[in-house]
Amino acid sequence: MHILIIGAAGMVGRKLAGRLAVDGQLGGKGVDVLTLADMVEAEAPAGFTGEVRKVALDISKPGEVEKLVAARPDVIFHLAAIVSGEAEADFEKGYAINLDGTRFLFEAIRLESAREPYKPRVVFSSSIAVFGAPFPEKIGDEFFTTPLTSYGTQKAMGELLLADYSRRGFFDGIGIRLPTICIRPGKPNKAASGFFSNILREPLAGQEAVLPVGEDVRHWHASPRSAVGFLLHAATMDLERLGWRRNLSMPGLSATVGEQIEALRRVAGDKAVKLIRHEPDPFIMKIVAGWSRDFDTSRAESLGFTAEKNFDEIIRVHVEDELGGKLPTYS
Amino acid sequence: MHILIIGAAGMVGRKLAGRLAVDGQLGGKGVDVLTLADMVEAEAPAGFTGEVRKVALDISKPGEVEKLVAARPDVIFHLAAIVSGEAEADFEKGYAINLDGTRFLFEAIRLESAREPYKPRVVFSSSIAVFGAPFPEKIGDEFFTTPLTSYGTQKAMGELLLADYSRRGFFDGIGIRLPTICIRPGKPNKAASGFFSNILREPLAGQEAVLPVGEDVRHWHASPRSAVGFLLHAATMDLERLGWRRNLSMPGLSATVGEQIEALRRVAGDKAVKLIRHEPDPFIMKIVAGWSRDFDTSRAESLGFTAEKNFDEIIRVHVEDELGGKLPTYS
Repeated sequence: MHILIIGAAGMVGRKLAGRLAVDGQLGGKGVDVLTLADMVEAEAPAGFTGEVRKVALDISKPGEVEKLVAARPDVIFHLAAIVSGEAEADFEKGYAINLDGTRFLFEAIRLESAREPYKPRVVFSSSIAVFGAPFPEKIGDEFFTTPLTSYGTQKAMGELLLADYSRRGFFDGIGIRLPTICIRPGKPNKAASGFFSNILREPLAGQEAVLPVGEDVRHWHASPRSAVGFLLHAATMDLERLGWRRNLSMPGLSATVGEQIEALRRVAGDKAVKLIRHEPDPFIMKIVAGWSRDFDTSRAESLGFTAEKNFDEIIRVHVEDELGGKLPTYS
Repeated sequence: MHILIIGAAGMVGRKLAGRLAVDGQLGGKGVDVLTLADMVEAEAPAGFTGEVRKVALDISKPGEVEKLVAARPDVIFHLAAIVSGEAEADFEKGYAINLDGTRFLFEAIRLESAREPYKPRVVFSSSIAVFGAPFPEKIGDEFFTTPLTSYGTQKAMGELLLADYSRRGFFDGIGIRLPTICIRPGKPNKAASGFFSNILREPLAGQEAVLPVGEDVRHWHASPRSAVGFLLHAATMDLERLGWRRNLSMPGLSATVGEQIEALRRVAGDKAVKLIRHEPDPFIMKIVAGWSRDFDTSRAESLGFTAEKNFDEIIRVHVEDELGGKLPTYS
């Protein structure tokens, strides 16, 4: 089969390609061709024996995404997006990539399917940013989407399009709202949510990290491994079970920063925890106060989606997948 | 002040223009200019002493709606839409008018406001079609939007855009979800919902009407006069009270067909009721079974929106506004 990943150079895209390369199959069918599309050329995953096609393109330009669809991939993972902060800073760019790019993709599939019968599986990575405060303590799938960012607005519009194009029979789509990914590999970044990963990843590498909020802050997490698991399950499950409600929030773990720290202590000891420097930042505290804290994801769970059940697991996944199973020697 | 109505040739647009002409003011400010825009040239309302500008245009064509916005109207009523049945039959046309047309309008305002400060009030007529079955018995404003038509999808996307453009400060917007309008003036039409009006309007004119469903069918109604009242209130109320949740369901009356018929009997007598012919139509019965039955509109009511409280009132409004206060003599 032929799998297309749009947004293949991003963190989740790379992990997904890596997993598909290792598995060599999806839902029991061998993967012959893996097309990796992004603004920049993506890296080919290690160990893949099939054909890798790399395509650098701008999905917001008319006529570009048609080239990907013309090859009639069986499964399309649409992960490409301008992230929240940038979509807020650059209004036009956010709408161009996140809304127009998504619509161009869906339109290209519709027109290809009109030319000659074609009905790929489309997996769209949405976001919990489709919800906006004030929230109930646990946000269920039936809660309304009133995003407080342009990014969340664009994702919510993508969800609506996906559901309508699926209902009309142009493709078989599912939109999954990913929790905040933790522990995000790589360097500390300036994103307001960065500290959730930084306070674990840096001490696990023997480095200091800054915690800008109080330990009572609660948020919604899943590991990168779980995110890839969601995408693979979404690509292979029977979508009839969803009816026409094709978008849903993925399972995750609701935990406080204090619970994250205690898990770090259990896995890596007091010396790791001592590397966290408390430096309250009122600006970040204010942003984070408006974020969702917990979700009711019983629908996704009943459909077979699974995530970590505690933060010790999330940390162990990171140690296995990013650190070769090894912790540093703390002095 | 200058008021622009887009969709001015439609039933609600004509009634709105007529009311503004009679009032001569909106929110205490005199109306100097009334711009009536639609695909076809709209009729000027009777009795208006200000300037009427008629513009025939296709809002789905790039560069068209900019001409309307360049005149910097103070209030913009955006009522233009391809209706449900046509948007379902013609996928491209529905998205062109209902989504692209709405976005072109909002973009034109954004770019005009960037050129020179400008922040009009934008009143968008949305629809209860943003909701899709299965529903709770009463649909509240916090229920999620999972439309089962392309029309409902386009309206839900328009709502999201309106909220984001308002939040970003490009205009001051409100989206109001109108109930099914009853009694719709004019001739019986083929719309699946037509019978709700037909079974009252036709007997009130001494004519026969066909009822294709059972008397236990419950639906959500408001008069054309209430619809105009919602639009005027939306155009003048303090929108700060909405926060960023700029879209809401309007009040209405949840009534069964049997209750409609009993109201007709009270207002016009048994002879009027005898003009209703029961001809069950399984096709229409099936469509109507998926429609919403009742809403919790306490939010809209607390913000000052009001509608009829019983069907006798809805019928009386029709007799006053459409029949000059007179009932026929039944033989």
